[in-house]
Amino acid sequence: MLHKITNLTVRDVRFPTSLEQHGSDAMHTDPDYSAAYVVIDTDCGLKGFGLTFTLGKGTEIVVCAVEALAGLVVGKSLQEIVSDFRGFYRLLTSDSQMRWLGPEKGVTHLATAAVLNAVWDLWARAEGKPLWKLLVDMDPKQIVSCIDFRYITDVLTEDEALDILVKAQKGKQQREDQMLREGYPAYTTSCAWLGYSDQQLKQLCTDALKSGWTKFKVKVGADLEDDIRRCRLIRQMIGANNTLMIDANQRWDVAEAISWVSRLAEFKPLWIEEPTSPDDILGHAAISKALAPLGIGVATGEQCHNRVMFKQFLQASALQFVQIDSCRLGSVNENLAVLLMAHKFQVPVCPHAGGVGLCELVQHLILFDYVCVSGSLSHRMCEYVDHLHEHFTSPVVIHDAHYMPPKDPGYSCEMLESSVQRHQYPEGDDLQLGEGADLPLKLHISDR
Amino acid sequence: MLHKITNLTVRDVRFPTSLEQHGSDAMHTDPDYSAAYVVIDTDCGLKGFGLTFTLGKGTEIVVCAVEALAGLVVGKSLQEIVSDFRGFYRLLTSDSQMRWLGPEKGVTHLATAAVLNAVWDLWARAEGKPLWKLLVDMDPKQIVSCIDFRYITDVLTEDEALDILVKAQKGKQQREDQMLREGYPAYTTSCAWLGYSDQQLKQLCTDALKSGWTKFKVKVGADLEDDIRRCRLIRQMIGANNTLMIDANQRWDVAEAISWVSRLAEFKPLWIEEPTSPDDILGHAAISKALAPLGIGVATGEQCHNRVMFKQFLQASALQFVQIDSCRLGSVNENLAVLLMAHKFQVPVCPHAGGVGLCELVQHLILFDYVCVSGSLSHRMCEYVDHLHEHFTSPVVIHDAHYMPPKDPGYSCEMLESSVQRHQYPEGDDLQLGEGADLPLKLHISDR
Repeated sequence: MLHKITNLTVRDVRFPTSLEQHGSDAMHTDPDYSAAYVVIDTDCGLKGFGLTFTLGKGTEIVVCAVEALAGLVVGKSLQEIVSDFRGFYRLLTSDSQMRWLGPEKGVTHLATAAVLNAVWDLWARAEGKPLWKLLVDMDPKQIVSCIDFRYITDVLTEDEALDILVKAQKGKQQREDQMLREGYPAYTTSCAWLGYSDQQLKQLCTDALKSGWTKFKVKVGADLEDDIRRCRLIRQMIGANNTLMIDANQRWDVAEAISWVSRLAEFKPLWIEEPTSPDDILGHAAISKALAPLGIGVATGEQCHNRVMFKQFLQASALQFVQIDSCRLGSVNENLAVLLMAHKFQVPVCPHAGGVGLCELVQHLILFDYVCVSGSLSHRMCEYVDHLHEHFTSPVVIHDAHYMPPKDPGYSCEMLESSVQRHQYPEGDDLQLGEGADLPLKLHISDR
Repeated sequence: MLHKITNLTVRDVRFPTSLEQHGSDAMHTDPDYSAAYVVIDTDCGLKGFGLTFTLGKGTEIVVCAVEALAGLVVGKSLQEIVSDFRGFYRLLTSDSQMRWLGPEKGVTHLATAAVLNAVWDLWARAEGKPLWKLLVDMDPKQIVSCIDFRYITDVLTEDEALDILVKAQKGKQQREDQMLREGYPAYTTSCAWLGYSDQQLKQLCTDALKSGWTKFKVKVGADLEDDIRRCRLIRQMIGANNTLMIDANQRWDVAEAISWVSRLAEFKPLWIEEPTSPDDILGHAAISKALAPLGIGVATGEQCHNRVMFKQFLQASALQFVQIDSCRLGSVNENLAVLLMAHKFQVPVCPHAGGVGLCELVQHLILFDYVCVSGSLSHRMCEYVDHLHEHFTSPVVIHDAHYMPPKDPGYSCEMLESSVQRHQYPEGDDLQLGEGADLPLKLHISDR
């Protein structure tokens, strides 16, 4: 079957997470986890589901961008797309008129991610496999044929990429079996959002320890004294042998990042995440250099907007942990390029997840990374946040703080139709919106 | 008067430039010069006009983003905004939910530029001055108060910025008088778009030489043999003493850029513009280093998306000519930061212009740069393209290849209402659009 794509629809879906300060950090004080949610229809009845993650306001802009891309997708067959996936990626990201709006960054790239995530989902469903297994079973040559190497050949050529994948074939089956048995290690961010009280933080930490969690991330960056108190509290709760990470969500300038994090060094954080602007490669390099003697690494990536930026972060030794994102980069295609570059530089990948759907999506990529690229779990773990999974038809499965490999065909981001209808903005059944579209979203929504 | 902002409208305006290959280059083969055009209304009847430049398809996405920002503007007074312009800039660029879509890049930042350009226009009109004169007359402290120094303090602090501006007060009046008399030097890109035939190129070059032009830019990057032929032709036409620049519009990877440009070195180009990805700071640095022995500099900036990127280009010695853009960066506010950083690194600023409205806008910024920041014309010139000026109420005035300082109050980007109505997409009087919104724009438009 050719699976000709006959239609592409996109909807604006918003969840009122800001009401209880879930997801709050030093820069995003009241996020309403949202998505531009894409459904692709084909002539044979098979569907593909994809999304990109947003924080509420402005999701309609991404929806508008997806609609602008739809004409490049509808009418093509899945076979036509995947037989030249590199060309199709280029078509979406380098349209002569549209690329001015990026290129490969911001709203248009988020939209590209949503569309391509749906195409990959469709492909995996057509093959009857979960996406990670589709990738694991794929010939290295075909994997490489999905990657656009434009602008990264000074660091990774197609031949080098192929070489990495071919070498990693050794031990692949054992690693796949291990993943099916044990799952991929995860850490939790659910305990210590910035808006949570100390009491709430203590309770969540106690619960998480009981459930087997050993690695914890704390939001910092709004107030140093608060951060010291919160980090001390968490470190006391989890003990010296468990792992603590801290995350400033871009709050600081370079010098401030260095001095602030130095003050938190006594709590032995493994990494400081997003210490400054996500665009500041040289700034991250300076911070990395200054914090290395303290044993603290730098992690970033959830707002690193494309492979060209990741290339430079790696070239400049500006990060010690690569945080890929399934919706910021151009879907699986661009993430493959980043996984391979990270391997070349021997920097561990620890994916960004959380939000809505990010855990569901990125687990596939990190499973592939372990089985077919890195072959290592050293200093590697995938973020986990325990929110909004109930809206998906194949939600993540966590056992003993590990992601268990998905078994259902696809890329795991199909939402329950009832959830979409309830949370579709602005007309969703549970979104009781008033007249004033200018009012903050959280004033409108009463879905608790 | 407080000039309370009562309304903000935005329209999608498109010109069918692709029909005759105006603006064509190695990456943008068929641009339809377009704009998201903003009009601000106030309670006293004064209006502000602003725009951001686009290439046709996707302009509706920027319009959608402007609409999302409108709520942050309407209801405020001009006085309220300009008395804390840094805070207002931060409000637009760092909304807790919206910043996820950038931050400060792509569609949302283009939209921010359109809105802020309109605010600056309103301010200049309220003061009864052209924008460049508003800036020139402004106290250094007030100029600095318009700049958001977040993420650039490792290179430029507020005190350093103030110090630069105070020192440049010396000789200011003479430089202003000089500009009013002679204008600011310009170069032309109108002669050698990639889609033009050799015959057309010769004719345009002959005409330009007659009109006093001495600096010429040629588009390259699609085919090396074509480039050699075209560069040879132009160099023969203009002679050894005039200036030639070449522009690849991001066509190459790093190694390819170096080898390709080396082949064109015999034609003595002053710079190679946009040799590779606009995001690739370290790539530009490698190219700069390789081409320096050939006497060829690297220029970039029209797609350099914010001050954090420019900061790094300067830190890494990755460019020898800074090409600011009035619509890519966050309006005057962010351009001020870049002008000051460029001065600190002693790198000349040669603005990007052309498109629709870019010449009208950016002339104000480069006049300010000369009078109040750089105080030098050495290796400095502003791009000029002779298109679409007829649609503006105060079009640029070029005398003997120099921009003559605008005299009308404002930021020079008010369009003729008749032009807007004729070119408004999709319903404009002269846009004879069919049913199929998916057809390329150029098939729809018959405005010649």
